Parts: sequence; structure tokens; C-alpha cells
Amino acid sequence: MATLVAPPNHSPVEDAEALGKAVKGWGADEKAIISILGHRNGAQRTQIREAYQNLFQEDLIKRLESELSGDLERAMYRWILEPAEREALLANLALKRDEKCYQVIVEISCVLSPQELFAVRSAYHNRFKRSMEEDVAANTTGHLRQLLVGLVSSFRYGGSEINARLAQSEADALHEAIKKKNESNEEIIRILTTRSKTQLVATFNRYKDDHGIAITKKLSDEGSDEFHMAANLAISCINDHKKYYEKVLRNAMGSIGTDEEALTRVIVTRAEKDLKEIKDVYYKRNSVHLEHAVAKETSGDYKKFLLTLMGKED
Amino acid sequence: MATLVAPPNHSPVEDAEALGKAVKGWGADEKAIISILGHRNGAQRTQIREAYQNLFQEDLIKRLESELSGDLERAMYRWILEPAEREALLANLALKRDEKCYQVIVEISCVLSPQELFAVRSAYHNRFKRSMEEDVAANTTGHLRQLLVGLVSSFRYGGSEINARLAQSEADALHEAIKKKNESNEEIIRILTTRSKTQLVATFNRYKDDHGIAITKKLSDEGSDEFHMAANLAISCINDHKKYYEKVLRNAMGSIGTDEEALTRVIVTRAEKDLKEIKDVYYKRNSVHLEHAVAKETSGDYKKFLLTLMGKED
Repeated sequence: MATLVAPPNHSPVEDAEALGKAVKGWGADEKAIISILGHRNGAQRTQIREAYQNLFQEDLIKRLESELSGDLERAMYRWILEPAEREALLANLALKRDEKCYQVIVEISCVLSPQELFAVRSAYHNRFKRSMEEDVAANTTGHLRQLLVGLVSSFRYGGSEINARLAQSEADALHEAIKKKNESNEEIIRILTTRSKTQLVATFNRYKDDHGIAITKKLSDEGSDEFHMAANLAISCINDHKKYYEKVLRNAMGSIGTDEEALTRVIVTRAEKDLKEIKDVYYKRNSVHLEHAVAKETSGDYKKFLLTLMGKED
Repeated sequence: MATLVAPPNHSPVEDAEALGKAVKGWGADEKAIISILGHRNGAQRTQIREAYQNLFQEDLIKRLESELSGDLERAMYRWILEPAEREALLANLALKRDEKCYQVIVEISCVLSPQELFAVRSAYHNRFKRSMEEDVAANTTGHLRQLLVGLVSSFRYGGSEINARLAQSEADALHEAIKKKNESNEEIIRILTTRSKTQLVATFNRYKDDHGIAITKKLSDEGSDEFHMAANLAISCINDHKKYYEKVLRNAMGSIGTDEEALTRVIVTRAEKDLKEIKDVYYKRNSVHLEHAVAKETSGDYKKFLLTLMGKED
């Protein structure tokens, strides 16, 4: 369930007028901007962007970029986009960073549904005039490249059928491949990039039943290079993306300071989807409410905005 | 341009009734079936299937399968399907053959537009309850697998931009990779599976200008294993698919007997698209009209059907 609280009836024109007032003159009225956009769903935000363009002959996104700053600006910029466009942007930003971060690439490829991933690839074409896979491929080499390009390009079957014999034989194949280390990465790549999610979860369960250890644990025991880390992330995202996001949030608010980028990413991308359940997982794991943790780690209008998206006014 | 001659106004119900008459009793009226279905486009054929189902509570495809036989049956079965469903079927048949034939996989992946290829992948899900890439991956190994899975999974950027510097650097990279033989196949795979078609054609032209030899010629000089053959096919399909189809037709009607499967495939899949231009290329290359060659190599109702799709009544 979503945490976003959006009224079913809103007037895009009135919202656009109110936003026009909030960005007028010196210094924007951040609270007004948050109280409007932090309570509108994707379709509503798109209507507001259109109404704003018509009223003021100006792109609302560009205007907000120039009026806001810091973490709030980045969070609002991500929030206001349509989901597919936002994920395409996040992927591109991850690929352009100096310190390459493949986590976002794996996350988008493995958490989204096959149809959603395809929508992101289309949005990537429109926005960057290139394919997502060619940018991934140009930034990587070897087995890591094979794995990431395969994940990004996947269009998994979405049905709920499970082939138990296949789960057994591929759990065995994964076991052999992990033991042989880098010799047999190709089998790991083939299985992780092509099978349906339902089938893969059955395979991972089979693995755990047969070997008494989670495949992610075994993989990280055997290697800590980029390939092993990416394979591990992919398995976590496919296995249970809510648990995966709980961990991202926990690490983002860990002892070595706050990772605002990860915090913003998870809250903005999940607020309209299943942040409610992720909050529950977080509470079970940490005995702290996610809102309290976020409130402690952030401040000012950025904090206000994140809490608003989480359905909690501060 | 298409060669198919289809009247804009037709009555699906009248067509379905006429087909019902043609398959009634002992022995079907092949000529009547050909004269109807051989003159209807994809949307019209789908309407006829629906009308037939409503009228007779029976699947027209299944009925035709039981009434027709041999090459005509196979050609009609392929023709009557929607393009994406047909290509999914052709891919699946190619993967199930004992003597593996990757030509069809490469052809579908590289001739179709990115959006069309995605429609085929969706149709494959619906029909076979698996992804096309998982069947390709399960049937292949090594570099051939990487290449084929990459081609099948590609969603190339479809714009017309050319980056001349990139064309130069990747023409150089391809040259180095081909020289080093199997050591550097991964660069060939990366370039062929991710770049836009427009960009790739620029790269192949750059290669020819720099080295005085077509990259396909160089590739087949350096290796004749399955990987090299598949890479070569991919380049031919991307470079000029009409020339590619001319060659498929020429080989299908070569000196060692007729390859009805290839002949049917090209005529059925291109009759509604660009068989007119392929006929022109064929005539230029062979000084024989394609219709004459087909008429010489085939016979009976099968011949009549192919000629009808080519816009030529015999």
C-alpha cells in the first residue's frame, strides 16, 4: 500500500495557480509547494505540470529547480516526474557518477515488473537518445557487464507457474557455479537474467533447503568483487524487494552519516506503491518507526517533504 | 511496399461463411480458401477468425490445420496469425528443431523494429508461458549464447542520430576484435547487441572505408563457427534486410532442391510489408522475376498461394 495521501478531487488549475504564487518573488514558499505536490499522485502531478505550462508558459520542473536547493530540490525533482521517467533518470545518474554505483541499475531491473522495466527503457530512449543497455555496456566489462546488460534487457515471463524440476536442477547448477568461482559465472548470469521471478524464488528456496544456507550468504562468502555484489543484490531484489528496501533504508541512516540520495530514492519511488509495507518491515527489524528514524536523520523542509510522502505531517 | 492485394471493404461474416462452405464435407476447397485469405490483411484475417468462431463455435486455425496438408497447411497456418504471434511461433519452432537453426532467431531480432521485437517477446510469453530469451539461453552456450540472448533482448534506440566518432572507434574496436579471434568476441557482442541500427550501419561503413573490405567478408574469412555465422547474419540483417532476404530466397531455391520452409517464411512475413522491394532486389541480382522462380520451384495449391501473396495470380 501507498503512504501518499492524495485527495481524489483536486483542480490542476488551482494547484498550478497556488504553485505560481509559491514561487513568485524572492524566495519560494517551500511549505506551500510541499503541501500541494506532496499530496498529489502521479497522474495529478502530470496534470498540474500541464496546467502550469498553460498558465505561465513555463516548465514547472525548471522553475522548481531554480527556486529550491539541496536535498529538497533533488527530492522534489525526482518526485514530480512520472515513475518511468524518474527511474530512467536515476539509472542515468548512477551511470554518470565517478564512483560507479550499479546498485540502482540492479534495483530498477529486478524490482520493477517486466512491463514497468520496459517502460523505463522507453523513457530512457526518449530522454537520453540512447538505449539504457548501451550505456550500461559502455561503462562495464566482463562478467559484470554480462550480468548487468542481461538484467537491464530482461523481459521475464510474468506468470505464476513453477517448474519444480527446473528449480532443483538450477539450484544444483547455481551451487556448482558458486563453488567453481569465476569459471562458471555464465550459468549464474543465464539463470538470473532469463528466468521468471516466481521460478527464481522457487530455485532460491530449493537452494536453501538443500544446502542449509541462503544463496546470498553463500555468494558473499565466496566473493566480494563487483560481480558477486551485483548478483547478490539481484537475488535480494527478486526474492523480497520489501526486505531489500528495508536494508537500503537502514544503511542510508547508519552510523556513518546519512545517505540522502538513497533515502530520497526509496521514499520517492515507493511512496505511491508499497512504502506502507516497507515501513512495517522496517519497524519489525529495527523496533523504531521509519518516520522517527527519518525525522531524526533529516531536517528542515527536506524532512517535512519526506514525512509528507510517508503520510505523516510533522 | 506490400505485394498483398487486399480489398479495403470486406465482410468478415461473409468471408467466414464462405470459408465454412470451403471446409465442409470431404476434402476442402483449397482454391476458395486461398482466394479469400490470400487477399486479406492482418486486421481483416483477425476479424475473420473472430467471425468464424462466432458462427461455427470452432477455431478456424484448427479447422484449416485438419483440412489442409503439407506445405500449403504450413504456409496458411503461418499466414493467418498476427505478425507478432507468427514470429514468436517461428522462433519457437527454430529452437525446437533437432538441427538447431539460429538464423530465424537472428532474423527476428535484427530485422524487426525495436517495438516489433518487443511485441514478439510479449506474444512469446502469452503463447509459450516462458520468455524467448530463456529458451534461447537454455539451447546455447558460450559466446553464441551471449550474442543470441543479447540480440533477442535488445531494445535499440530507434532515432536517426549518428555519432561519427563512435562509429570510428567502434569500427576500430571491431577490427581489433576480429583479428584476435575468440579472445575478443565480447566487444563484438557488446557493439552488435546494444547500438542503434543507424549507428551500426555508420560503423560498418566506416569499417569498409578504412579496411577496403566488408566486415561480413572479413568475419567469415576469420571464422566459420556458429558464433561467427550468427554475428555475420546479424550484420547482414541490420545493414540491409532486403538484400538479406534476397539471399535467403536465392538459397532457398538453389541447386540442391527447394527449402520450402525458408521460402514460405520470407513470403509470408514480408508480403504485407516490403516484398515488392525484395522482388526488385531479387530481379536485379538474378535477372529472373521472383514470381517466375517461385512458380518453377513449387507446384499445386502451395504455388497458387505463394503467388497470390506475391500479388500474382497464376
